[in-house]
Amino acid sequence: MTQIETRLAELGVTLPDAPHACMANYVPFVVVGNLVHVPGQISQNAGGLIKGKLGADLDVAAGADAAKTCAISLLAQVKKACGGDLSRLVRAVKLVGFVNSTPEFTDQPKVINGASDFLVAALGDAGRHARSAVSAASLPLGVAVEIEGSSRSARDARAPACGFPAPAAGASRAA
Amino acid sequence: MTQIETRLAELGVTLPDAPHACMANYVPFVVVGNLVHVPGQISQNAGGLIKGKLGADLDVAAGADAAKTCAISLLAQVKKACGGDLSRLVRAVKLVGFVNSTPEFTDQPKVINGASDFLVAALGDAGRHARSAVSAASLPLGVAVEIEGSSRSARDARAPACGFPAPAAGASRAA
Amino acid sequence: MTQIETRLAELGVTLPDAPHACMANYVPFVVVGNLVHVPGQISQNAGGLIKGKLGADLDVAAGADAAKTCAISLLAQVKKACGGDLSRLVRAVKLVGFVNSTPEFTDQPKVINGASDFLVAALGDAGRHARSAVSAASLPLGVAVEIEGSSRSARDARAPACGFPAPAAGASRAA
Repeated sequence: MTQIETRLAELGVTLPDAPHACMANYVPFVVVGNLVHVPGQISQNAGGLIKGKLGADLDVAAGADAAKTCAISLLAQVKKACGGDLSRLVRAVKLVGFVNSTPEFTDQPKVINGASDFLVAALGDAGRHARSAVSAASLPLGVAVEIEGSSRSARDARAPACGFPAPAAGASRAA
Repeated sequence: MTQIETRLAELGVTLPDAPHACMANYVPFVVVGNLVHVPGQISQNAGGLIKGKLGADLDVAAGADAAKTCAISLLAQVKKACGGDLSRLVRAVKLVGFVNSTPEFTDQPKVINGASDFLVAALGDAGRHARSAVSAASLPLGVAVEIEGSSRSARDARAPACGFPAPAAGASRAA
Repeated sequence: MTQIETRLAELGVTLPDAPHACMANYVPFVVVGNLVHVPGQISQNAGGLIKGKLGADLDVAAGADAAKTCAISLLAQVKKACGGDLSRLVRAVKLVGFVNSTPEFTDQPKVINGASDFLVAALGDAGRHARSAVSAASLPLGVAVEIEGSSRSARDARAPACGFPAPAAGASRAA
């Protein structure tokens, strides 16, 4: 296990071996240079999709839990992009977090903290990232949170570290 | 014609020679290194703007058609960024798709598929991209869909392939 | 003073020495290669947060003023990322502007122009950028506008111009 995976085990988090496949005609990650771009990951865990609107159906704590599942999916995709070797992950770069909420909801940052706090807990300083947190009028399949991300891997595009993704396939879902 | 343009002709799509200009004080694309960043393209075709809210005014099929027009505009901007030579386009990297919808709408992925499917039809595997699909509370001028994108061109920033854009000018519109 | 700061003084704008710190477990900027990524900056000035919904509480002019404060915060973060030396800023690359609005509001571009016009006034052609402007169902703390940005600095990641940010700390707020 890498140092990161030891830390994940301490946190009680197991990254899915086969991250959620895509809902449509796109790919689970794209590598350009040493940047890995991961599409929007929707809130879900082993129990299925985490649905609902903040400000109506879910409280902030439940929203933060939902955001954490997005971050776990992001990290699982990055691991796959790095050929299964998370030690090639240099740092998280940026998250954009979309919260499914009522028009009156104002605690987007506390919700997306569920993702940010997890990444820092798992990756240490390398988990610190730039971030935006906004509300979406609604989200795919009614999920509570969707987060996209980019991160930096160790090597450069001219000698690609992670290879380009194969076409998407599979039964599970990402937005 | 490049291979891509032959394929576009087979698909019955003609890229506008003069892509929609910007609505404001920004530029139709920015090239950094081998990445072309294209601002949000709003749904429109030769008949004008495609307006309306998914979940109220438009069904999913109409939304997907609207999304396809955004992708056509994106590709037209990328062509311009590549000096008119689409063979310099290496691959689509990432789309962020915003759907103008009611708070209850949950089929954002099927709407944005209109763009994704077109890019894969036109570009083959090079058209596969990372993607996020969310709802916006509303969109510029009431359009149904807005999509921004980035793509990779053949050469590097230190020997810029596409040059920097001239200041925006023109009468038509992008968001 | 750099040329940019002379221009800022002419515009009557003083960049805050200590830009707003983050609301959560993330950092005020991330540098990858020669790109500076700045997280979403929320509308605020010396008087505090600028709150409200476009289409209900605020008119377009007030929204554009709010957007301008976001751009000032973005530029302050970029200055910090460049070690205090704005002459290392090569150009603005991209903005994504989120407007807190009613579902019927359609003047997002005019609102975000408050940011775009300021950047072009301050930076000249180097301030021209790719841009998306959409409405969010709501925004952190009820602010009117949130804008994230990326810009290009003079040097390359392999000889980092700006250094990596220290962990976020402080009392003030960014989204």
